[in-house]
Amino acid sequence: MALNENFRIGRSALLLLLNEEDEQQHERLANADWHYCTGKVGSMEAHKVVAAVETAAKNNQIINKDLYREGHALYHAIIEALHGVTRGEVQLGSVLRTVGLSFSVVRGSPYENSEEGEWIAVSLYGTIGAPVKGAEHETIGLGINHI
Amino acid sequence: MALNENFRIGRSALLLLLNEEDEQQHERLANADWHYCTGKVGSMEAHKVVAAVETAAKNNQIINKDLYREGHALYHAIIEALHGVTRGEVQLGSVLRTVGLSFSVVRGSPYENSEEGEWIAVSLYGTIGAPVKGAEHETIGLGINHI
Amino acid sequence: MALNENFRIGRSALLLLLNEEDEQQHERLANADWHYCTGKVGSMEAHKVVAAVETAAKNNQIINKDLYREGHALYHAIIEALHGVTRGEVQLGSVLRTVGLSFSVVRGSPYENSEEGEWIAVSLYGTIGAPVKGAEHETIGLGINHI
Amino acid sequence: MALNENFRIGRSALLLLLNEEDEQQHERLANADWHYCTGKVGSMEAHKVVAAVETAAKNNQIINKDLYREGHALYHAIIEALHGVTRGEVQLGSVLRTVGLSFSVVRGSPYENSEEGEWIAVSLYGTIGAPVKGAEHETIGLGINHI
Amino acid sequence: MALNENFRIGRSALLLLLNEEDEQQHERLANADWHYCTGKVGSMEAHKVVAAVETAAKNNQIINKDLYREGHALYHAIIEALHGVTRGEVQLGSVLRTVGLSFSVVRGSPYENSEEGEWIAVSLYGTIGAPVKGAEHETIGLGINHI
Amino acid sequence: MALNENFRIGRSALLLLLNEEDEQQHERLANADWHYCTGKVGSMEAHKVVAAVETAAKNNQIINKDLYREGHALYHAIIEALHGVTRGEVQLGSVLRTVGLSFSVVRGSPYENSEEGEWIAVSLYGTIGAPVKGAEHETIGLGINHI
Repeated sequence: MALNENFRIGRSALLLLLNEEDEQQHERLANADWHYCTGKVGSMEAHKVVAAVETAAKNNQIINKDLYREGHALYHAIIEALHGVTRGEVQLGSVLRTVGLSFSVVRGSPYENSEEGEWIAVSLYGTIGAPVKGAEHETIGLGINHI
Repeated sequence: MALNENFRIGRSALLLLLNEEDEQQHERLANADWHYCTGKVGSMEAHKVVAAVETAAKNNQIINKDLYREGHALYHAIIEALHGVTRGEVQLGSVLRTVGLSFSVVRGSPYENSEEGEWIAVSLYGTIGAPVKGAEHETIGLGINHI
Repeated sequence: MALNENFRIGRSALLLLLNEEDEQQHERLANADWHYCTGKVGSMEAHKVVAAVETAAKNNQIINKDLYREGHALYHAIIEALHGVTRGEVQLGSVLRTVGLSFSVVRGSPYENSEEGEWIAVSLYGTIGAPVKGAEHETIGLGINHI
Repeated sequence: MALNENFRIGRSALLLLLNEEDEQQHERLANADWHYCTGKVGSMEAHKVVAAVETAAKNNQIINKDLYREGHALYHAIIEALHGVTRGEVQLGSVLRTVGLSFSVVRGSPYENSEEGEWIAVSLYGTIGAPVKGAEHETIGLGINHI
Repeated sequence: MALNENFRIGRSALLLLLNEEDEQQHERLANADWHYCTGKVGSMEAHKVVAAVETAAKNNQIINKDLYREGHALYHAIIEALHGVTRGEVQLGSVLRTVGLSFSVVRGSPYENSEEGEWIAVSLYGTIGAPVKGAEHETIGLGINHI
Repeated sequence: MALNENFRIGRSALLLLLNEEDEQQHERLANADWHYCTGKVGSMEAHKVVAAVETAAKNNQIINKDLYREGHALYHAIIEALHGVTRGEVQLGSVLRTVGLSFSVVRGSPYENSEEGEWIAVSLYGTIGAPVKGAEHETIGLGINHI
């Protein structure tokens, strides 16, 4: 039932954002036959972050846009990742702060037992702060769900 | 006032955990004259995670253990990082889950303007799940504070 | 001081929504001389759910609209019911989700000791999900307060 | 993609608790070939509620105890149901309150499109209050997840 | 329906803690025929703070200990006051912090319209911090409920 | 490391709001060479409360508007104070409630050990309730941070 050390889906999602120029990372994911996408979103509204990640995941066929089941899995992964970003309540502009984020979505089979099936990881990394250039610090979030 | 792209304190704290064998990462931190430490903690009690990070940061002189001001900065950074790990409420055993975490604490000056002074970043990465071997997935958290 | 098993106010409020065609339920409430109303509301904004329940309770004389004391009791019951619906933070559109709810408000004396006086129960039942037809699952909430 | 009105999994889980003597409810579930179980738990500790539901679901083969994927789906459904019960933070004894709950777990296919697959619903209903006989009111919670 | 400026129940509860030596404050409350009590509690466990306030309020006849209705009003006022003290989640020792608090409970009629009846205010004031002498700062909380 | 009983920064911030006509309070703060300001804000939007306090603190030179470090310290103190005001989630209009608040910001050195440096306290006091005149009760909040 254990996580396969070489196929850590959360770490993969995180390194896609943190090691932008690491070609090996992309190769490893391709070799594993995992699906993933990355993107960027800046907003004072949390729902725009949710929408940006959902749209990217659907357009890149990471999830099947016609199955609620898959949208449900992705949605909860995004909200969990947003908890790491907001560290308290999932609020941005309503408490006068904004984010500039890169995101990645990875879908694959991280467990040694193949019956554990596919999981999805959403990672967000960037800055959070006041709506003033430079008045911001880094932030990260990761959400993982079975799909 | 901007963050210095080459001295991102949060990314540094995260990569210390995700790229364990990356020697360059340690070199970069040493060259920047930043202070940091890493450690591990597994527990069903959030206060043990807090204590493990605090103890390591004090023992490695990342913070001055005699100044409440520094302990206060560190404490809030730890709790913020725990929000990313727990994605909701900072509870572990009380809702029947446990964590196995690596942690890093980095102290340095990430802003181009030197008057922005020192900041502290706490990163947590590992697994969270049921108190059953293998019934767990990855999790991450990052807290950043001025010090 | 015990709850009267035959006059469970929360269960009454819930069954008004779940057993829509149960005539006996309405009879029981009328016989007990309890006051109640039901209604429907669909929205991406939590404050519209609050307003819909408040308006129905006032228009149906479940609470006295001129007494803040009664409005205060009702408000907290609504917010508590919304916690069950949102399971985390009382947010809808701001995290890109919407609800379609039926609601009931019941006012009566559920305790054997008549000195315990009147209480109010607010129940919400329906669906929550993405703002896309069918991408939703059921949800429920119940809030109870002394009045 | 729509929910099948006749196979509402959340409503089924709720009515198992609220209409205890309704034989038809059990028949309907059996006819639909859905799996379910019910039980009771009283505690001042949230983790005991989690454990009681998990154990019942495993012992009654509602979920496969050897698959983390299924345990993960169940766990989140339980925690979501606890949010409705606690209406704020998932804490009981730590804020000096206790619960006496009945619970049900239902597994089935509530969507018209069979590709939406199986879902799991956890419902909790009972009382919450001070650790003093009678100083309590009713409470409910429902969590639903894809499995 | 307005609050009577001269009978602000929350301000009264707060000043009992902040202006410890103000005799006039006690006189004003006695003249208004309001009931109140004060006390102290230090703990790493939130439920001990709840219990200390509840016990004081009952022993000083601020509330009728045989009516759940009054205990329910007091309980929610205490928990609301604790939100101000903990500023996030109502947790103390579980996140490695402790409080040393004075508390007051005031019961009276703060509204000009006498039909608004009695309300209860709970105030907490003191320090919160690490379980180390001096590693602490001030904190306050106020909860108000109809009774 | 202890707090200086005569220089309690939180109590000072609170009394500025509660004892509006106490000249001594202003004198004490001036003599200690502490900086402070007060103001008022009424809104259904939390971000307007944040903005009002930030603007007053900058315009009165309580913080240096060009240093993110100081803005960061102030921001977290405001959000912590808002937790006391909202007692749960930092939401106002989105859950159909509004506030009318006075606020104070105090900057000074409350610890006996001068190395503990400067701290900032934000206090909010006023009313919270429905957007209907008179349907409101008092509320308070205090946030304290190192600066």
